[in-house]
Amino acid sequence: MFNVVIVRYGEIGTKSRQTRRWFENILMNNIREALVSEGVEFKKIEAKHGRILVKTNRAGGAVEVLKRVFGIVSLSPAMEVDADLEKINKTALKLFRRKKRELGLEKPRFRVTARRITKEFPLKSPEIQAKVGEYILENEESEVNLHEYDIEVGVELMDGKAYIFVDKVRAWGGLPIGTQGKVVVLLSGGIDSPVAAFLMMKRGVEVIPVHIYMGEKTLEKVRKIWNQLKKYGYGGKGELIVVNPKERERILEKLRELGKEKYTCVFCKFMMVKYADKIAKDFGAKGIVMGDSLGQVASQTLENMYIVSQASDLPIYRPLIGMDKEEIVEIAKRIGTFELSTLPEDEMPFAPKHPIIRGSWEEFRKLHKAVFGEEPRREC
Amino acid sequence: MFNVVIVRYGEIGTKSRQTRRWFENILMNNIREALVSEGVEFKKIEAKHGRILVKTNRAGGAVEVLKRVFGIVSLSPAMEVDADLEKINKTALKLFRRKKRELGLEKPRFRVTARRITKEFPLKSPEIQAKVGEYILENEESEVNLHEYDIEVGVELMDGKAYIFVDKVRAWGGLPIGTQGKVVVLLSGGIDSPVAAFLMMKRGVEVIPVHIYMGEKTLEKVRKIWNQLKKYGYGGKGELIVVNPKERERILEKLRELGKEKYTCVFCKFMMVKYADKIAKDFGAKGIVMGDSLGQVASQTLENMYIVSQASDLPIYRPLIGMDKEEIVEIAKRIGTFELSTLPEDEMPFAPKHPIIRGSWEEFRKLHKAVFGEEPRREC
Repeated sequence: MFNVVIVRYGEIGTKSRQTRRWFENILMNNIREALVSEGVEFKKIEAKHGRILVKTNRAGGAVEVLKRVFGIVSLSPAMEVDADLEKINKTALKLFRRKKRELGLEKPRFRVTARRITKEFPLKSPEIQAKVGEYILENEESEVNLHEYDIEVGVELMDGKAYIFVDKVRAWGGLPIGTQGKVVVLLSGGIDSPVAAFLMMKRGVEVIPVHIYMGEKTLEKVRKIWNQLKKYGYGGKGELIVVNPKERERILEKLRELGKEKYTCVFCKFMMVKYADKIAKDFGAKGIVMGDSLGQVASQTLENMYIVSQASDLPIYRPLIGMDKEEIVEIAKRIGTFELSTLPEDEMPFAPKHPIIRGSWEEFRKLHKAVFGEEPRREC
Repeated sequence: MFNVVIVRYGEIGTKSRQTRRWFENILMNNIREALVSEGVEFKKIEAKHGRILVKTNRAGGAVEVLKRVFGIVSLSPAMEVDADLEKINKTALKLFRRKKRELGLEKPRFRVTARRITKEFPLKSPEIQAKVGEYILENEESEVNLHEYDIEVGVELMDGKAYIFVDKVRAWGGLPIGTQGKVVVLLSGGIDSPVAAFLMMKRGVEVIPVHIYMGEKTLEKVRKIWNQLKKYGYGGKGELIVVNPKERERILEKLRELGKEKYTCVFCKFMMVKYADKIAKDFGAKGIVMGDSLGQVASQTLENMYIVSQASDLPIYRPLIGMDKEEIVEIAKRIGTFELSTLPEDEMPFAPKHPIIRGSWEEFRKLHKAVFGEEPRREC
């Protein structure tokens, strides 16, 4: 029945013609990649007057996939017909009937919203609305109500064609992946880091997922999480990079020897950022993403984050920093990572009973020198 | 009618007795400061069994103020009476009648939810619910419905007292200001930075607001914004610090001379962070907060944020980094800063036509040396 999906997108940083084209091209590539990866057939993808049209006979399936492509604000499965009043009327009626059945309503309230994107059609938008509305009223038990309606019939006209639709499916918004460069994200297997990765991806960033090995159970879990996140990653999916830190034992031993086990967690995070920094530089990534939320656990303090941040000159992006746990969990559930994050993981035998709450940079420096024989900051 | 407000709070990092007491004390101080600042009289504030009770005859006014105190999850204006079934019944009926009138319902559906916080009361919670429910049914046109109800009558019992309420007002959650240390926030007068400040405050941070002077109009606007933000700042309100950078002219001249005006914005932000860094260190603040959202304007890129981040070794917190403009505007409207952010401001005569999109650190270093005769990073 439908033969096209109308893709609407939102913000573009500047409105220059050149930037718009660049943006649209990346978005079209991501759409293509999404449909091909998910096996949804289509005939053509084209940008037209601030919209993207996906010609396909599998509009329903396409919408389900494209809902997860960032940069898209809303989607409508639509029928493209010649811009001819009779054809528009008949198509509108057909879609109206279908929707009425779907909703199971005796006498639905409806309105028609028409827009001439290009102006060659002889009737103006309010006239089109009146004509189509009348036609539906004549042929189907119904009632017009502009403010409270069960069904909205949309008619968009451009380049000699009319696009008729009765659904507008909201997507995530954000920016197309690939428009904003690359960052490394540290994935731990917990609830927070996948949400942090998701939010950065939503802003158009390609993320390179890095996991610091803790054991097989946790690794398996992180693989599942990354596979889920990839469903939002059309346009830039890296493979999970797993780092197995060989100096872990040495650090733990030394800290134990010095009676400073309480610094284990800070040291561990510092080392994670050091690995992330190296990988970022190898891959040309411009930042590191972490799932920190202030004060969520007692040791997630400004002091400890200060220490950890010294491991790299790259900016550390913490999109969850201002969120409550409840808000983070809500997003995790919506994007399908929550369940995975609660799967069992390897125990950390080296986690100290009382991790340091407000670590001191001076003390950390001394410990770093004791363990590695050198200062923690590269530059100095 | 009401004589107490029940204050419920949420997450506390650890559950140790000591941490809980510390957390409650800070929250009680913030509550006291809020009520005193807003002239709401009260008799006593006390922590009891995981709740805080504010004894006051101005419960309505207190709730309005306390809604803005972070760390609080929900609030109920309540009546405290002796834990005696007859008194509980009569009070519950009185509150029920009042709520029924307020809602204008003929035969409201209701349920009673009872909780024994301490267990000395002879009846168990389900029995209390049954008794109170019966009493209301006998005396007032109504109907019990446990799942879909218009009114919920709450009864909490502790230490020989009963607390009865019919409203539960949601507050912002988060953590009490003062539990998480201090950060400096750069307030520009735009829509974003006040929202960034708000979100950090919500996570229990005391913010020190810094504005880099642009002109009188903008300054006046930023003062209004900060006055609005202060309404959420009980527990730690700094005064606005205004910096008037004297080297601005020199930078602009030099950039013009070198034909590198396109670096003006990056330079400007770099200098802002340098000032924020100095102020942070003077005040013992552990981070800098900025309102950056990736790709919101063409020049808000990972590359430019990398350069700006080099101006300080402190972590830069960007709570909006993963948000769309629409989401930021929604919060700005809820917290009352949106309107203020759209007030007129001074024009920036030195803003370049084509700001650099992806600034190069190497080039920036050279420019910095040309302007100041030294490397941009302190440490090297």
